Amino acid sequence: METEGQRTVSSQGLAHASGVTSAQVRKDLSYFGNFGKRGLGYAVARLRKEIRLILGLNRRWRVALVGAGNMGSALFAYKEFRRQGFDIVAVFDVSADRIGQKWRDLTVRHIDELRAETERLGLDIGVIAVPARSAQGVADRLVAAGMRGVLNFAHRRIQVPPSVALRTVNLSIELESLAFAIKALGAKATGASRRTRATA
Amino acid sequence: METEGQRTVSSQGLAHASGVTSAQVRKDLSYFGNFGKRGLGYAVARLRKEIRLILGLNRRWRVALVGAGNMGSALFAYKEFRRQGFDIVAVFDVSADRIGQKWRDLTVRHIDELRAETERLGLDIGVIAVPARSAQGVADRLVAAGMRGVLNFAHRRIQVPPSVALRTVNLSIELESLAFAIKALGAKATGASRRTRATA
Repeated sequence: METEGQRTVSSQGLAHASGVTSAQVRKDLSYFGNFGKRGLGYAVARLRKEIRLILGLNRRWRVALVGAGNMGSALFAYKEFRRQGFDIVAVFDVSADRIGQKWRDLTVRHIDELRAETERLGLDIGVIAVPARSAQGVADRLVAAGMRGVLNFAHRRIQVPPSVALRTVNLSIELESLAFAIKALGAKATGASRRTRATA
Repeated sequence: METEGQRTVSSQGLAHASGVTSAQVRKDLSYFGNFGKRGLGYAVARLRKEIRLILGLNRRWRVALVGAGNMGSALFAYKEFRRQGFDIVAVFDVSADRIGQKWRDLTVRHIDELRAETERLGLDIGVIAVPARSAQGVADRLVAAGMRGVLNFAHRRIQVPPSVALRTVNLSIELESLAFAIKALGAKATGASRRTRATA
């Protein structure tokens, strides 16, 4: 909205954009503070700033990427990370083919260097982009190196101590959700044509 | 749970695994049918089958991938899609370097062939893995070709007609959510140490 020059937004507008009710929007935002004005809605720029503060995005995060394969390359090239405050400043792998590769101004390093590099570079977050069978081992190394958060792209449930934040990304869920939406649209279309026939 | 040999699960167990309340689990599942037995919970295998049916996963979906760059390669290599019923059976691009490349048993084709291939192969779903500036143009072509659903990995809001299902994946949100979790853990740790000091 800010990019598009919109100055204010109502809780209804936020509800529409986010797929929840306007009551939920007001309730959720009021949990963090008093951001809106009755009848005027929310000032977009201020609300964005407040939400970034709530989310911990009012700083830059230093990210290590583990896995320099297809998924790792795609994540390294994903421009939106940097725009949102996440800088991939180190890339690790175990494969001799990949170690030493130049990725822009970075050199892919052996994962044995993870601990030393975490300290040297002040890394906060580790992103796991390795095959499923290696995911837990990488997670253990990230934790041992002192990472505060782990983002797992491998299709395997991994465990970290409660002091470390963990998110697992399952890209299949996006396609599953889409399949459900297609099915729902089909049912609606069928329902509509049935209704049309019934009326005719 | 099925993979791990678990035969039954309570609504509490499902609630714990999914991060919602057990009342919500029971309410949501009862919307679709009567799957559980009071005091016994849900039979894991049957519940999984029912949920796959609800989600439209009791069939295979034929997927076209548009964009044979880093993200496209990563998605093509993502094994979990096939396991969940999504077969990438065509890959399109516009770059002369990429057209004609062999990706396993597929050949990367020019996007001008999208329409003909959609009909020939019976494609259902188009996945957009192109730069943001090209995303809407690709979406328009996917819709014109007759796709029923579009999964957008480009960082750009795109529009499709209401008869076509659309999901947009924003990978930054995963890192943002992780940053928030790290911040929350930090606040908890600080709170705990403050409490310890106060007690001491």
